[in-house]
This record gives sequence, C-alpha cells and structure tokens, in this order.
Amino acid sequence: MLSFLSDYTEGAHPKLLEHLAARNLVSLPGYGLDEDTDEAKRKICAACGRDDLQIQFLTGGTQTNLIAIAALLKSYEGVVSADTGHVNSHEAGAIEYSGHKVLSLPHTEGKLLAETLKTYMDAFLGDENNEHMVRPGMVYISQPTEFGTLYSLAELTALSETCHAYGLPLYIDGARLGYGLMSPACDMSLRDIVELSDLFYIGGTKVGALCGEALIFTKRNMPAHFLAVVKQQGALLAKMRVVSQQFDALFTDGLYWNIGREAVALAMELKAAFVEKGYALYMDSPTNQQFFVLTREQIDRLREQVAFGIWEWLDPDRAAVRFVTSWATTREAVDALKALL
Amino acid sequence: MLSFLSDYTEGAHPKLLEHLAARNLVSLPGYGLDEDTDEAKRKICAACGRDDLQIQFLTGGTQTNLIAIAALLKSYEGVVSADTGHVNSHEAGAIEYSGHKVLSLPHTEGKLLAETLKTYMDAFLGDENNEHMVRPGMVYISQPTEFGTLYSLAELTALSETCHAYGLPLYIDGARLGYGLMSPACDMSLRDIVELSDLFYIGGTKVGALCGEALIFTKRNMPAHFLAVVKQQGALLAKMRVVSQQFDALFTDGLYWNIGREAVALAMELKAAFVEKGYALYMDSPTNQQFFVLTREQIDRLREQVAFGIWEWLDPDRAAVRFVTSWATTREAVDALKALL
Amino acid sequence: MLSFLSDYTEGAHPKLLEHLAARNLVSLPGYGLDEDTDEAKRKICAACGRDDLQIQFLTGGTQTNLIAIAALLKSYEGVVSADTGHVNSHEAGAIEYSGHKVLSLPHTEGKLLAETLKTYMDAFLGDENNEHMVRPGMVYISQPTEFGTLYSLAELTALSETCHAYGLPLYIDGARLGYGLMSPACDMSLRDIVELSDLFYIGGTKVGALCGEALIFTKRNMPAHFLAVVKQQGALLAKMRVVSQQFDALFTDGLYWNIGREAVALAMELKAAFVEKGYALYMDSPTNQQFFVLTREQIDRLREQVAFGIWEWLDPDRAAVRFVTSWATTREAVDALKALL
Amino acid sequence: MLSFLSDYTEGAHPKLLEHLAARNLVSLPGYGLDEDTDEAKRKICAACGRDDLQIQFLTGGTQTNLIAIAALLKSYEGVVSADTGHVNSHEAGAIEYSGHKVLSLPHTEGKLLAETLKTYMDAFLGDENNEHMVRPGMVYISQPTEFGTLYSLAELTALSETCHAYGLPLYIDGARLGYGLMSPACDMSLRDIVELSDLFYIGGTKVGALCGEALIFTKRNMPAHFLAVVKQQGALLAKMRVVSQQFDALFTDGLYWNIGREAVALAMELKAAFVEKGYALYMDSPTNQQFFVLTREQIDRLREQVAFGIWEWLDPDRAAVRFVTSWATTREAVDALKALL
Repeated sequence: MLSFLSDYTEGAHPKLLEHLAARNLVSLPGYGLDEDTDEAKRKICAACGRDDLQIQFLTGGTQTNLIAIAALLKSYEGVVSADTGHVNSHEAGAIEYSGHKVLSLPHTEGKLLAETLKTYMDAFLGDENNEHMVRPGMVYISQPTEFGTLYSLAELTALSETCHAYGLPLYIDGARLGYGLMSPACDMSLRDIVELSDLFYIGGTKVGALCGEALIFTKRNMPAHFLAVVKQQGALLAKMRVVSQQFDALFTDGLYWNIGREAVALAMELKAAFVEKGYALYMDSPTNQQFFVLTREQIDRLREQVAFGIWEWLDPDRAAVRFVTSWATTREAVDALKALL
Repeated sequence: MLSFLSDYTEGAHPKLLEHLAARNLVSLPGYGLDEDTDEAKRKICAACGRDDLQIQFLTGGTQTNLIAIAALLKSYEGVVSADTGHVNSHEAGAIEYSGHKVLSLPHTEGKLLAETLKTYMDAFLGDENNEHMVRPGMVYISQPTEFGTLYSLAELTALSETCHAYGLPLYIDGARLGYGLMSPACDMSLRDIVELSDLFYIGGTKVGALCGEALIFTKRNMPAHFLAVVKQQGALLAKMRVVSQQFDALFTDGLYWNIGREAVALAMELKAAFVEKGYALYMDSPTNQQFFVLTREQIDRLREQVAFGIWEWLDPDRAAVRFVTSWATTREAVDALKALL
Repeated sequence: MLSFLSDYTEGAHPKLLEHLAARNLVSLPGYGLDEDTDEAKRKICAACGRDDLQIQFLTGGTQTNLIAIAALLKSYEGVVSADTGHVNSHEAGAIEYSGHKVLSLPHTEGKLLAETLKTYMDAFLGDENNEHMVRPGMVYISQPTEFGTLYSLAELTALSETCHAYGLPLYIDGARLGYGLMSPACDMSLRDIVELSDLFYIGGTKVGALCGEALIFTKRNMPAHFLAVVKQQGALLAKMRVVSQQFDALFTDGLYWNIGREAVALAMELKAAFVEKGYALYMDSPTNQQFFVLTREQIDRLREQVAFGIWEWLDPDRAAVRFVTSWATTREAVDALKALL
Repeated sequence: MLSFLSDYTEGAHPKLLEHLAARNLVSLPGYGLDEDTDEAKRKICAACGRDDLQIQFLTGGTQTNLIAIAALLKSYEGVVSADTGHVNSHEAGAIEYSGHKVLSLPHTEGKLLAETLKTYMDAFLGDENNEHMVRPGMVYISQPTEFGTLYSLAELTALSETCHAYGLPLYIDGARLGYGLMSPACDMSLRDIVELSDLFYIGGTKVGALCGEALIFTKRNMPAHFLAVVKQQGALLAKMRVVSQQFDALFTDGLYWNIGREAVALAMELKAAFVEKGYALYMDSPTNQQFFVLTREQIDRLREQVAFGIWEWLDPDRAAVRFVTSWATTREAVDALKALL
C-alpha cells in the first residue's frame, strides 16, 4: 500500500535517531535546563541570523498553538484567524478551552490578507458597543497554510505592518515551515519570518522528527515565568532532550531544509502528473500538500492501492482530496502513484 | 430628550417596586431557599401549564446564557448559534471564557433555520476528521431574535425536531420573550416554548424588572448540584428575593404579558410612522425593537432630540439604527417622535 | 420565630427602596455609564477621602472576589489566603474555576498575619523547584474576618508592608466592612483601608442593600478594558442603577456607618448576655457575627424559637454556632433572645 | 560528576531506542489509530491480566494527571489528595488551571489513609452549607508516593473501599509504578492496582522511556470522545508511535519490571550505606527515591562530586535531600558514592 496520507506516518529521519542514540547515556538535568537544549537553541538562532531569540521546545502543533495564544492574550481578548486556520477548525476547541474566542475572518486561498484584517479592525474599533465584543488581541496565520499555499513576502509584510499598526502581535504557525520555505515558489527566508512575526514556531513533527516543535519569541517578548506556564499546561517534558536533540540534528548541516526541498520536489512531480492526466486542482499548492478534485469512483479505485485523505465532499459525487509528501516519501512511491493515475 | 435607546433605560415597573417594599421586612433564608422564591416559581409554572419545571433565578442575560450553556456542554462540545446570536457577538466572549466554542452558522433574518442546522450536522458527522473538531453539543436561539424577528411555530417545531434528531438540546434565550409572544405576528404560546425547548429563560431585565431572569429546565434535566454551579460562577444571590419577588409580581394578573403587549403596540405605531415617512426598514420586526436605515444627516438631526442606537454602519453615509420600546415608553413619547420624523 | 441566621435575611434598608423608587422613571443609559452611577462613585470617593478611585459595582461577594482575583492574577499565579478565608472555603471553587489556586496558610483567629506570610514567601522563594509550584500573585484577606474578628491597624499595616515587600497586591474582602469599621474595637478608618490595600470592596448585600458590592481599585490599577472582563464573567448589569442607586443612598448622611454601628451595638449586647449566662465563646468577635459553643440539647431547644446557623460540629455533642445581627435586627428581637437563654 | 539527581536524567533504555529504530520506516496512521499502538495496548493488557482495559498514551506525568482529573470531574467538583501529592504541590497549578480545586488532606508518610478520607467525607456530608463548598469528586494518590513510600495492599484496599463507599473514583498516579511494585517491601501486584483503582497510569518517562505514560481506565469508564478531550488539551501526539513503541518494548520480556527491580536493589544498597555511616533517614523509603537529612556542610562537600536534589530546608543548617536511582544507574556509580560518604 502506498501512503500519501500525511507527513506524519513514518518515524524520524534516521539522522535524528542516530543523534538520540549517540547522546542517550549522557546525564542531563530535566525540563530543558541542559546543555543539549542550549545547543539546539544555538543552532536555531544561527539559522535565524539572530542571537537573542527566546525558544521553548514543545511536543506538538496544537499544544504549541494553544500555549502561544493563551500566553499572549488577556482574558477578554481573542485571536484573529482565517476561517480555514488550524486553530479555528481542527484543534478540537483547544483555544476556546483555554478561554479565548477564535475571531475567524474570510480566507483567500487559505490566507488572511492585510486588507481583510484592516476592514475587520476598522469596523471593530468604530463599533459603539465594542466593549461587549471580544477584543482582537493577536493574529494567527500559518505558513504554508492549511491548503499548502504560501504568503508572498509582500503579503506577509503587509499583514505584519497592519497587525502592528493595530497593536496586534503576529503569530505564525510553522508546522510545515520547512516545506514552505523550500518551495521554489517561496520568495522569503527564515529571517523574514523572524523579522515580520512576533512569535512563530518551527515544526518538527511534520518535517522529520518523532515529535517536537520550537516556539520562538522574536522580540524578547517571552512572558515571565513561561516555564511555569508550560508546566501548568502539562506540556513541560521532563526529558526535554527527546525534542531538543532532534532539533539539534535537524539544524545540523541544513538537514531541515534538505528534507523540505526534496519533499516539495516530489510533490511538484506528483502535481504535474495529476494535471497531465486531467485531474482538476482543488487548490494550486506549491508545497508538500497537494489538493485535487476526484470523483467517488476515482477515490474508491485509487484507495485500493494508495492511502490519501478526503478533505471535504464538494457534492455527493466529488471530493477534494489531499496527497502529502514528506522526508519519507520515496521516488519509487511517486513513480508507482503516477502509474496508477 | 426622548429615549428609544433600549428597553433597560428605566427602573422597574412600579408594581414590582411595590411588591419588593411590601415583602421587605419579612425574614427569609438566603440563596433561593425561601417561600417567596417558591411562590414565584409556582406562578411561572402555572403560566407554563406545567408543575414539574425546574427554575433558577439569575441576574442578567449573559450570565444566564453562560451558566445554561456551560452546565449542559461537555468540555469538548460547542454551542451552535446563528452568527448574529447574542452569545456569538455581544457577550465579550463569555461562552469561550467558560471553555466552549460558539459554532456559528449563517442566519436567516436573525434566525437559525432547521435546514441550516441539518446541513451543518450532516457535514460534521460525515467528516472523517471530526474527532479533531469541536463537537456540537447544543443549540442556542433567541425568541425574538437580536433583530426583533420571530420564529413561527412551524419554524420552531422544525428546529426542535432537527435538534432532537441529532441529540442536541435546544436552548431558547428569552431576554425579550414577553415582547415576542405578545406580538400580533406571533403564532405560538409560552406552552409551545416549554414543549419545544429543553431549557429556556424568561427575561425580566428587559421586560419590567430591575434585574433578573428565570432559567427554566423543561425536562427534569437540571444538572445535579446546580446550586453549586451557580455559586461557582459568582451568580448565586444571597438575597434571591430581589429577583424572585419581582418575578412574582410580573406573573401576577398577567403583568408580564400586558407589558409586552403594550410595548409592541407602540412599536408597531412607530414602525408605521417611519414607513409612512419613507424611511427604509433594515429588518421588518414585529416586536419591540425596530430597525431602520438612516443617513448620517438624519441621524445627526434626530439625535439632537432622541436617544437611539446605531446598530451598524452600512456605508460611510448610512447606518442601520435601532429604536426600542418598553413598559416605560409612553404614548406621549411616541407621538413626540412621530412629530420629529 | 426570631432570626439571627444571617445579615441577608431581610430586604433593603427602607431608605434604599425609597431612593430606587424616587429615581425609577429617570431614563439612564445601561451598564454603568449613567449619572446615578457617577453620583454613587462620587459619594464613595468622598467617604474614602480620595477623588481618584476606580470603582466597579457588582452584584455579590463571590462574584466580586472572583472577578477581582482573576483580573489581577496571571495564569500561573495563585492567591494567598488564610485557610479560613471565604475564597478558600465557601465559594464552591469559584476561584479555581477561574483557573487559580488558593494558596491557603494557617489562620490566627481568622486572620493572616504578616509573619505567616513572610515565612511562606521566604520558603517559596528559596525553593529550588519553585517554577513547578503555583506562584503567589496576590493576597486575600477579609476585614472583618469570617469569624467576625478584626485586624488591628498595626496588623494590617504590617501585612500590607509585607505584601508590598514581595510585590504582592493586597485585596481586602469587605463584605461586612461597615460592621467592622464601626466596631468599638476597631482602630482604623476607611481611609486606612484605602491606603493599605491595592483593591478592596465595600459590601452592600450584608449591610443594608438588596444586592451590590463596590469593588474599588485604590492605585489607578484597574485593568484595561475592565468592563469587558466584567461582561465576560456575566456580571455586568444592564440596569446598573439597581446597585448604584442603593450605594448612593447608603453613602448619603452616613447611613452605611449608622447601620454598622447599631448592629454591632446589638451584637455586643447579645454577646454579653450569652457570656453572662455561662456560654463559652467559640471566637471573641467584636463585630456583628457572634460565635458560641452550644451543646446539642441547647441547640435543639433554642432552635424551636430562634433561627441561627451551625458553624461546625466540634464533637458529637457540641457545635460552634453563629448568631448575626444586621440593620434589620430590632431591640425587641435581642431582648426576646436574651430572655430565652 | 556522579548523578543521583533524578530518574529522568538519561535518555531511554537502549532496547526502546532499538525498537523505535526497527519500526521507524513502517507507515502508520496518526493519532494512535495504528497497529503498533494496538500492540502496545495488548501487551499492557496482558501484564494486567485483563483484556478490556481502555488505554490512552500520553507524554508526561502532569499532562496525564490533569487530563485524567479534568475528564472525570464535573465543574463543581475537586480532587482529594494528600497535601504532599504531586498534583497539590509540583504541577504549577495545572489542576486548578483546568478549573478544579485540589482538596488537600494531611498525609501519613506521603500516603492518604482511608480513615483520613472517611473523617473528611463525613464532615463534608454533615455540613449544612456544603453546597457552597467544593464537592469532592475523586481521589488522587501516587504509588509509590512522592516520598518513595508504599501503600500496603491492606491500606490500598481500605482506601479503595472507602472511596467507593462515598462514590469517589480512585485514581493512582504510577509515575514510578515499576519502582514501587518491584520493591521487596511491596505486597501487591499490578493486578491489584487494576482491581482497586478506577483509573491509573503506568509511568514510562521515569522508568526507562524518553517520554510517555499509559493512562488506563479499568472499568470501561473512559469518557466518550476521549480522543477529542486529549486533542483539546494539546496532548494528542500525531506520531503516537513515539510513545506506544516504547511501551511495546517496555512490556516485552518483562523489561519494565527488570528496570524497576534493579534500580530498587541499588537504592537499597545506597540507603544501607548512608545508614551505616550514621546519616539520618528523612523518610524510610523502600523504593528508588531515598531521602536523608544532611547538614549544609555535608551538602556542600558532597555536591562537589555528586548531583542530588535538595527537597526541603528543615532549618538553616539542615536539609532533607533526595538521591534517586534508575535504569541508568550503574553499580560503579553506587560504589563511587559509597566511597564518598
């Protein structure tokens, strides 16, 4: 059975397992106060071109989103997101469980545009009754988006400026950041992400790690006693090494970027093959997630030999489907899929 | 200055003050365990044609909504509401603060229609990933709605049946229930509300009381230890009498219904006068809230002599505005307003 | 049946009802943005000898405590309280429901002493693992305490200084403040309360009002958008007048203080009578709550003619019991009780 | 530098890393819906002598505690714990953050005894005002305790019976369960834990895993939609394999028990050596955590060559200290430490 189900169906890139094994018997203090965690942070800082970033390693994406958002918002504030944002749709209400409304705005190909935000903020600020409404307290986006699309540097710059004009911190969910920044269609670098955001995370789980995300505060804006916040959320690993050692390996010799580049190249091949065979794109994604429109008959036939996800039924006979590549996707698998189309 | 700003700009209907004064020196135990509270409950039960209702008096509408919703939902569930629902728009995130998402669906003249709910539920239940989504756990509507419109008996019956087909309790916000049920356009009675809902509240604050709402569980479905829930939310009055004695008076000799009938009659006069003068209706409301479209110049001119609310700016020059009548609105005030149009 | 059950068994002091009635038909905007609320605030400010206090009217004591505490604490902080504190024992977990631990310390006659706090803080700050513990973020006390006892000016000054030495705001629950400050045993004034606390509340419900408490920030330290916080908690009254007009009356011609003085005088008589008859004091209270030790037989006999509360069973045959006076307690009732002892 | 700081200072037992590597490239669906997770659950069930257990793998101890407790309690309930319980003291308020009070009772050598619980419950149920108090909703204990001590089978049976007599589920924190059950002083088996508790967890992080705990519902009592609950808390791993594969290895060929047995044997040697040298025991622990009383001078001297934890300063010159063994502790290290005493 071929699998293009997701980018989290295999374990870790072998180099990560090797590094975990190599450091396994070194005695390290717990909770992230150890030299290996420091080393991983240094390597991430170097990749970001900054030496003053504040970094907290966490386990998964939803956990990272909820901790980042809950830590920044005041009780009466909500987080602005495109309606397609992961925090709005697929986190089982984690943000609301922490007490905050997701203020969802219409998306544009999965993105939240600066002008959409501006229109919303002007209406909010002009409303006589806005003390009875949820106050927007920060903005959430994902790069690449849940549809695999990318903000251009111009779009992200405009959004960042708009956020800051209204006093809103900008938070970027980088669950698949490696696949985004390494797309040939991407015109920005990690340093742009650092400069334009107030906090963001570099996703590990979907880019080669067994688990782990690196939450990064870019403006010395990590809240006081953040360790206690993380602990309180049940998110502080006793053996932080399991995440930090994997990040150390990911940011050694450019592994993180190589994983992204190769998976996106295979995704582009796969997209070209679908298009050539006459399948319609549901969304034109330049990253490792590809969305097509298939009929029920096509879905049933393909699913006999390939695992992939159904994103949404468009009508009783047609669905948007998702094919995903990752560090673990082989050329052989892509070729085999192409032969099945 | 004339005021049509809202239905909570004056104190209490005089009969309520009289009853508070008459009972003032009677010694009663606290927290609702008193004979006056029992008496008020009996009168409400009689009006509802049922003797097995479970009733909790609370202070205000947002408080009632959040307690009702938080008490019924499990942690991973959300409340379905029209996007124009009070819980979604004007409660400063009270529902989310209690941990739950408001699952907003498109409204139809302020109403949530059965078919809108059905389409949503079928999509939710058919989604492969719905364990990662907020599970709908109950439905919230208001009668009359935030736009003053009314569900017909057929609409409410259809919605109730759809809710129950999916296992969702139906909760009705009756902040202005008296103004709704007494509208000439209303084809249902309080008994229909009782039968079709799982819980609802009869609003006091906006229908003649200084404060107070009566939250009513219609199916012996009040959660265990509900008093502790109310206490925990900071909503348990030591002197429950302040609310229950007012409700006693409201449900003596049909006062609650008389208040509703008279205020709606004045509102209908007011609407007719606006229409006659050529003003456009923003929403055709058969209850005590009336919505018109006015130009900025008209607004500025009228506001010199009349207080009323701006609902929403439709464009830079035109706004939807709201005029509200209540038990305290006099014929003289309506006539004076008409003369100003 | 005589009642010494509590100070919330009757309605409102007649002057409050009179003032509500006198202002009943005046049209006022909602939510506290009205002239009557402003007037009540001015009178409270005058009584406090300050013109820069920030005041929010709320409905009840638990509500006030939870809003005050939740508004000041960060998510990882807790509130320090004597273990006998109302927030620790009799609020059904309202503070914890808002996400915060009550850090309970041993009481001394219901009081939290400066040295108790100091010992605790030094241990906390000296603990290597304190990032894994709940961080103390503020201090809660009540004056008078839950046992009717009073902090002396020296005790309160020492506690306030200790709080501030550790950066902890001091919050004073004044549910019965009028009965405390008017005790002959009290050596402090309202102005001392204002100066030594960071926020406190003047209780109305137990000192003559139907409902209502005045939460007061003494250092221009009301959090931003506090109205939204109050709304979010379901605590913002549409008709704020119901509370503010009562406070206006309470702070007109010293009514609040007269109520306190007279009720305490009757309580002192009552205590003297019990003592004279040989009953043991459970706690020597100089305010309107009196605690005695009674046998089961004495309790059963007295309860035939008098309502009073059982505080705690000390052993199977003896209980601490509570007798409370208020503005509504008459000399006749006290004389009748004395005759029964 | 020798380290007896804790049982989470090294990585994973080598057999766990081997198993992770062996299964690394197998494609598995996410979120625990995979065959490897099923296999780990089967092995745990076999060890428990039951085939109907419901198991959820989680990442760490605090996370497991808060999810277990929040999932079982109603909003107005609290969890009863010894005051020394981890949930009461060292989880940064995670339980309270989820909305629930920890109802702490006096411990007996770190344990909560049945009679302590009984006394508390009888007082609670007999209190006239208990609707104003936090209702006890479940009981939390740890086996072994935070002091390394063990409940005997008789003590645990009595506690379990008392819990159930009052309708309280019993939850056992087994962060170090392997070190407890393998102590020569332990007179119970894993099957007793299963039978006497309503839910418990088998700790992985401190017993050989990089991360991971197995939360086990023993009575088909896993709440509905528990996956959504876990997701909502940010605790659902996309690659659940990282935990389940480690548990598979731990429960293959009795590895989990061997780790426990060997570490406890070394701890017993270490205790004997301290005692022989005349050091006082702070607590007489039969498991892998050992507590002694050392002077400041002894601490300073030893810390030059050995890492260990300071538990609590008893007076300015003496502290309770903790030495911990684990699967990673070598005989050489124990011998070296003994030579330093």
